[in-house]
Amino acid sequence: MVRWEPDTRERLRDAALELYTAQGFDDTTVAQIAAAVGVTERTFFRHFADKREVLFGGSAILQQDFVDEAAAAPAGSPLEIVTSAVLAGVGYFPEERRAYSRGRQAVIVANRELQERELSKMATLAAALSSALRDRGVTEPAATLAAESGVTVFRLAFEAWVSDDPRTLVEIELELFAALRGLAA
Amino acid sequence: MVRWEPDTRERLRDAALELYTAQGFDDTTVAQIAAAVGVTERTFFRHFADKREVLFGGSAILQQDFVDEAAAAPAGSPLEIVTSAVLAGVGYFPEERRAYSRGRQAVIVANRELQERELSKMATLAAALSSALRDRGVTEPAATLAAESGVTVFRLAFEAWVSDDPRTLVEIELELFAALRGLAA
Repeated sequence: MVRWEPDTRERLRDAALELYTAQGFDDTTVAQIAAAVGVTERTFFRHFADKREVLFGGSAILQQDFVDEAAAAPAGSPLEIVTSAVLAGVGYFPEERRAYSRGRQAVIVANRELQERELSKMATLAAALSSALRDRGVTEPAATLAAESGVTVFRLAFEAWVSDDPRTLVEIELELFAALRGLAA
Repeated sequence: MVRWEPDTRERLRDAALELYTAQGFDDTTVAQIAAAVGVTERTFFRHFADKREVLFGGSAILQQDFVDEAAAAPAGSPLEIVTSAVLAGVGYFPEERRAYSRGRQAVIVANRELQERELSKMATLAAALSSALRDRGVTEPAATLAAESGVTVFRLAFEAWVSDDPRTLVEIELELFAALRGLAA
């Protein structure tokens, strides 16, 4: 009988989150995470640079989604291109991921160092998106302002999605982009 | 003869920046900073919680400027109120402060932990500004989006001001706010 098993990376991620939630991020060791999955620490380090990166491994994928769509989106205002790019990222956050994301958020909110890392990942995301806009001819300062605004919308929408907002991530993002367009009015 | 001397807090700040620049933030101790000014470590700790806070002591003052003006500004759109609030913060950054701010920026850019702390201070600033907007009746999500946009403008303007942009901070901020209003067009 062949039994389906999630891959090692995903199992490590889930075990880590469970331990961080139960006993705190600071008090959890890589050895404990590896043991919970039945692999060696060496295997853990093949997947993640350290115990902190377990929580941030997805940001590179999300960034690629943003950047690819920023390059491929039809011609439009900087904000229209950024809206397409940010909406393209929702594929990474289907409804079945919300419980995990919510648990992850609780761990991050409880730890200042992790909060600062999260903000740093958002800054990297904005820089990549801004660069993609410049590559297709958007000039400064519009490129950076549009990219920063898009990442702000993503961050606020994500925070609502993992708290008690019942809407899907794309619904929340669409409302925030509409509000952003209305700000100047 | 009475000789003018800057107050101890300012002397500690200047000595700290000089040491961080010369030998690196990580390799500088509170003892060295205190010794450079001829005071005890105890005196240092009366002014600053730790050697990191020397670089961020101004953010509370800036935040108060933002919040006070957000409360006092004439009625207008959320973005108009935020523009007033952010422009009110330039009093903290006269031209004669640019050299210090530039040195501070170089120390921060060289150290990831300090960069993350800087982002965290910006997030706190945005939260305070958003709260001030809600206090005067601006609804969500406009309050948070306007506050975040204003802090983004401040951050980008500040980065340009401490690099090689010859304009004053207020000139740079005005250009960025205009570009922000034009984003949706």
